[in-house]
Amino acid sequence: MKHIFTIVILFLGLTAGLTCEEGMFPLSEIHKLDLNARGIEVAAPELYNPSGVSLVDGIINLGGCTASFVSADGLILTNYHCAFGAVQSLTSTENDYLRDGFTAAAPGAELPARRYSAWLIESYRDVSREVLAVVLPGMGHAARSKAIEEKIKKMEVDVEKARPGRRAEVAEMFRGKTYVLFVYTNIKDVRLVYAPPRAIGEFGGETDNWAWPRHTGDFALMRAYVAPDGSPADYSPGNVPFRPRRHFQLSSAGVREGDRVFALGYPGSTHRHKSSHYLAYEEEVALPYQIELGRWIIELKERLSLEGRDTAIKLSASLQGLWNNVKRSEGQLKGLRDLKLAARRRGQEQELQKFIQADPLRRRKYGELFARLDAAYAEARCRARRDQALASLVSGRVSTLLGNAFRVCEASYERPKPDTQREEAYMDRNFERSERQMTMALRDYSEPAERAVIREMLRRAASLPAGESIAAVRALAGGDDPGQALDGFLDKALAATRMKDPAVVSAWLKTPQAELRSRGYADDPFLRLAFALYPDYREMKEAEKRQKGVLDPLLAQLVDVKKEFLGTDFIPDANGTLRLTYGRVRGYSPADAVEMTPFTTLKGIVEKGAANPGNEDFAVPRRLAELAAAGELGAYAHPALNDVPVAMLYDMDTTGGNSGSPVFNARGELVGLNFDRVYEATINDFAWDESYSRSIGVDARFILWSLDKFSNAKRLLAEMGIR
Amino acid sequence: MKHIFTIVILFLGLTAGLTCEEGMFPLSEIHKLDLNARGIEVAAPELYNPSGVSLVDGIINLGGCTASFVSADGLILTNYHCAFGAVQSLTSTENDYLRDGFTAAAPGAELPARRYSAWLIESYRDVSREVLAVVLPGMGHAARSKAIEEKIKKMEVDVEKARPGRRAEVAEMFRGKTYVLFVYTNIKDVRLVYAPPRAIGEFGGETDNWAWPRHTGDFALMRAYVAPDGSPADYSPGNVPFRPRRHFQLSSAGVREGDRVFALGYPGSTHRHKSSHYLAYEEEVALPYQIELGRWIIELKERLSLEGRDTAIKLSASLQGLWNNVKRSEGQLKGLRDLKLAARRRGQEQELQKFIQADPLRRRKYGELFARLDAAYAEARCRARRDQALASLVSGRVSTLLGNAFRVCEASYERPKPDTQREEAYMDRNFERSERQMTMALRDYSEPAERAVIREMLRRAASLPAGESIAAVRALAGGDDPGQALDGFLDKALAATRMKDPAVVSAWLKTPQAELRSRGYADDPFLRLAFALYPDYREMKEAEKRQKGVLDPLLAQLVDVKKEFLGTDFIPDANGTLRLTYGRVRGYSPADAVEMTPFTTLKGIVEKGAANPGNEDFAVPRRLAELAAAGELGAYAHPALNDVPVAMLYDMDTTGGNSGSPVFNARGELVGLNFDRVYEATINDFAWDESYSRSIGVDARFILWSLDKFSNAKRLLAEMGIR
Repeated sequence: MKHIFTIVILFLGLTAGLTCEEGMFPLSEIHKLDLNARGIEVAAPELYNPSGVSLVDGIINLGGCTASFVSADGLILTNYHCAFGAVQSLTSTENDYLRDGFTAAAPGAELPARRYSAWLIESYRDVSREVLAVVLPGMGHAARSKAIEEKIKKMEVDVEKARPGRRAEVAEMFRGKTYVLFVYTNIKDVRLVYAPPRAIGEFGGETDNWAWPRHTGDFALMRAYVAPDGSPADYSPGNVPFRPRRHFQLSSAGVREGDRVFALGYPGSTHRHKSSHYLAYEEEVALPYQIELGRWIIELKERLSLEGRDTAIKLSASLQGLWNNVKRSEGQLKGLRDLKLAARRRGQEQELQKFIQADPLRRRKYGELFARLDAAYAEARCRARRDQALASLVSGRVSTLLGNAFRVCEASYERPKPDTQREEAYMDRNFERSERQMTMALRDYSEPAERAVIREMLRRAASLPAGESIAAVRALAGGDDPGQALDGFLDKALAATRMKDPAVVSAWLKTPQAELRSRGYADDPFLRLAFALYPDYREMKEAEKRQKGVLDPLLAQLVDVKKEFLGTDFIPDANGTLRLTYGRVRGYSPADAVEMTPFTTLKGIVEKGAANPGNEDFAVPRRLAELAAAGELGAYAHPALNDVPVAMLYDMDTTGGNSGSPVFNARGELVGLNFDRVYEATINDFAWDESYSRSIGVDARFILWSLDKFSNAKRLLAEMGIR
Repeated sequence: MKHIFTIVILFLGLTAGLTCEEGMFPLSEIHKLDLNARGIEVAAPELYNPSGVSLVDGIINLGGCTASFVSADGLILTNYHCAFGAVQSLTSTENDYLRDGFTAAAPGAELPARRYSAWLIESYRDVSREVLAVVLPGMGHAARSKAIEEKIKKMEVDVEKARPGRRAEVAEMFRGKTYVLFVYTNIKDVRLVYAPPRAIGEFGGETDNWAWPRHTGDFALMRAYVAPDGSPADYSPGNVPFRPRRHFQLSSAGVREGDRVFALGYPGSTHRHKSSHYLAYEEEVALPYQIELGRWIIELKERLSLEGRDTAIKLSASLQGLWNNVKRSEGQLKGLRDLKLAARRRGQEQELQKFIQADPLRRRKYGELFARLDAAYAEARCRARRDQALASLVSGRVSTLLGNAFRVCEASYERPKPDTQREEAYMDRNFERSERQMTMALRDYSEPAERAVIREMLRRAASLPAGESIAAVRALAGGDDPGQALDGFLDKALAATRMKDPAVVSAWLKTPQAELRSRGYADDPFLRLAFALYPDYREMKEAEKRQKGVLDPLLAQLVDVKKEFLGTDFIPDANGTLRLTYGRVRGYSPADAVEMTPFTTLKGIVEKGAANPGNEDFAVPRRLAELAAAGELGAYAHPALNDVPVAMLYDMDTTGGNSGSPVFNARGELVGLNFDRVYEATINDFAWDESYSRSIGVDARFILWSLDKFSNAKRLLAEMGIR
């Protein structure tokens, strides 16, 4: 009995939402929660109410980030790092908003953030039956995946065609099992209203990323604009502020240690319902590759950055992203190893297998489940090295030129297909965004970095053993001296290519394949390489779809049998849809005799600056230091700390995508702004644990203090209802 | 008024014992303390009572460490690192006590710790008047120093001659002002009774040295033996256990956070009464030199250690010592800089100067005080580089061969003098110890290290500018190619020298100079170099005595005028004499939002082991891991932690020499064993502060748990009154 109980607890600890604070609850689950028992005074219908106004109406999907409305006139609060792209692209030598920050003195001075759009949830409905109806008996694995994919795309396109200004997204909730159609209002005119200097918004830089104690003022303000008639519209000077159904009041009273909090946001993805095979694959194959790839690219780009300030500036954003990913991956790998997560989940699966064996009906339904998972992952492992090399080559994240060339090539195959049969990036609804990503990537183009990265990536791909080699790469660097062959290719290719020009990239992306060939564009060395890689790439994509076709029904079964075994229901992994999480303001102990307390302070900013002299990441703005020294805390001090709290810790369940999520106190006042997790909690995506899973938010008091004392942004404070 | 108040507080904070926990109180001050008001239930006469039995009777001066009696049969508790010399010299291939630890199964199995002696305080008396009576009007500065020195030596020798088995030490309490004669019973037969494996006694190694959280089981047991008649005697198998007047009961109940504690011990030296000049000299001259010297020797020895396990073993003790000193010096330098201690003390001295100027009498007495201090330190700075190089050359701590050669040379000058006029090391009472130190130093002799260190030390000395050069070094390496000259010298010298032989060193040390020369011993290359260095060295020693003669009366004046200014008394700096300190069990905050709690646990040992795989410093003994996993805590668990506490933090005022000090609870039960300070508290020697000055002790519960569960040392537990 005790044994079974332990197993149940282990499962719940890893999967379900019934333990105290784990859980990213989808909208459909909110009404089932006894929020009062969890110390939350806001009733479920106030949180989410499809037929009335609720907190959910104030929450924004900002494309990879979350944001929220903080005034009746569409003022948006999100993270500095979420608004960073806007700040960076608006910065010029005359107006260095990165260095100085930005405060729009008047409504007319608010600056368009061109690539941003704000999605507001309008409705959702379960479409599992409709989606799965396309799966026909005897269908192959790849065909199954493609049929579902196409059905989903059709549903999305249908909604968007019928209702302009909307964005539709069908989300897979439980893999291969449940699907929900979300319809969003899509506001496309978003403007930058306020950003602190980078020295505040990114204080601590890469050193402090994924770490506590943290002193980053990671917040910014934007605003949603719509056409005068209230409908979503592209940017126009004549647009007017959007008036949201709901906005939130920032609290200058804030929270204290132990206080209940909750958050709404768009967490990206977690993997708590996947099998031990997935965890083992991540630990042994995927994460080690990503870390190694990130590390050598970082090393190479850091070495180049030392050679000149120009190159350093161009590579800085890319290096920041690389470091962010490597550090997270390393934390995850460490967590997987230290916590032995794969072995623990394997142990649970063995218990599950016994449970399956104990009953003939279950044996018939699920008897082959784990054996099939074994086989599916064994195949993935065989393909891994070649697939990883190929995916890295064509991914714009490694080489911009080769990535763009590959998009042009792939578009020439995809664009002639019916819209809903294309790969997502080339569908009409996504095409413009894809094009923008490609041209934007050229903004920070650095030839020495590009050359070194392509060369090393191809050299590595060329060194794969014969059975795993990639034909196009072998043709390029197959001789006795691959280094010399690659240098020869790159000398010519970089001189001859036209793909450094964004206009060319844009034009070619829309050029049919026949024309690419007849006009000789396809002879561009990078495009030629892309076309040569394409057959192998296509084969890999087919294998992926086949693999998904195999895994989807198996993972659906896994959820079913786990439900039977545990006799309980649970919630789906994060998948970029709106979720509720709740918990407490709470420190943690990263090591024996070390306690992290849950608030940092202004004083701590100044101390970190003093402890890291000459380190730009910790350069304290003079005005901040002066205000801190003068004790100019305004009405924003934490009473026990006698200082303005800068960042705070809580044990809510968050992941990437929760960046910018508003953190509410029990009464639904906005007390913080989520922006990161502690290092130990990088493993959150695989396993949440109350002892180490802590997320980090900017304290609302620091936001208000910064607007008031540091930036004197009285207009905005008044708009936010702060006197 | 507020200004003056601030100044007074600053002075007290840096110098006096009236703040809550600062202060190393000498015996003469204990009766003045209101211990009850400080939460200590032991009355002053129980602590120290010259005419009866008191806690002081259980305290041992172990020569650089403190120890205490923990049984009626002379069982001694001290740090593992204090007993390390004994453990190391008793270890052989057959009996690897370093690896396995040592438990004497029966009294007869206790092993002689040859170089150890235990001093028990017998009496003390103020002899300031007698000492200062030798200072005659018009005496030169050097003559003043020498006269005081000789007087002190005479008093010590007189006591020891009159009372065999005693050790006498006159300690300078306030520089140039007060002197106290301490008489100790000198027990010379000390034996090793118990040592844990090095993996416990040094767990965490250099990485954790000067750091918290700490998990080092830094304790060992020894025993004092005396002749059957109870008198101190050299080691003899017929000796019997010493029966101390007082011993301490280890408490398995232990302490909790916030509990009052006090400690008795022999802190080495602090510098809180010295002037700003001293602090500035340490910050700008002394510490940077020591750090640089330590760093290059470490680098060199670590490189050589990589070349072979034999060399690595020989250099390990020396490297450990070097790292310990470098890390402490770096902590001190950081503290001096971060806290701007010299500037703060300079500011106080300016206030003091105003106070002096304000009164004609004071002006007459102290008017020149600071100007003279300025001049004295200006001279010291001029001499610094040459003196540092010379002192390093002749110090056995850098080169064993050259150091020993120099001792032989100096002995041939000193030994013919009357005993009390010799340099201390060559007085009859110290001669044997000096000889032993010299021969012991050869035990770890490694020729490659010796060669490299001498070469680099001489190369550096040879590169001093002309005005500061050392004649003998110039003669050796003065040509166009000093490197080649040094290599030539070392090739010949290392081949020809006889000083690698301990027997030769012993014999030569006792050989008169005329004979050294006539027999040709003085032609040994290292002895020849030592004789060549001697004139410069002698000149340096004279300058030191002159400097002390200048500073002593000035520092005496500084104490006098500070007393006048503050209208209060205070206690002298630590000087290797018995001191009381008191405080609380208490964590601290090294940074914003980081709290160190005051106990570590068994679980923490296992966690550190897991977090540092493959690192020998953190190798957890299998048995300890098993006991921890099995929850075998015995009666030694901290109730709130539900684990055995391993180390603890408290805010008492300690320094080097307090190693092995017993830590008592309010009722005088032994609850811990002091062994280190946190990194921030390396600055303790210059300034104590309640916010960061934390010392570290082994928890008595861990000592008992180790003896009981880990080592099954029931005999010793029974003797210590633990059932």
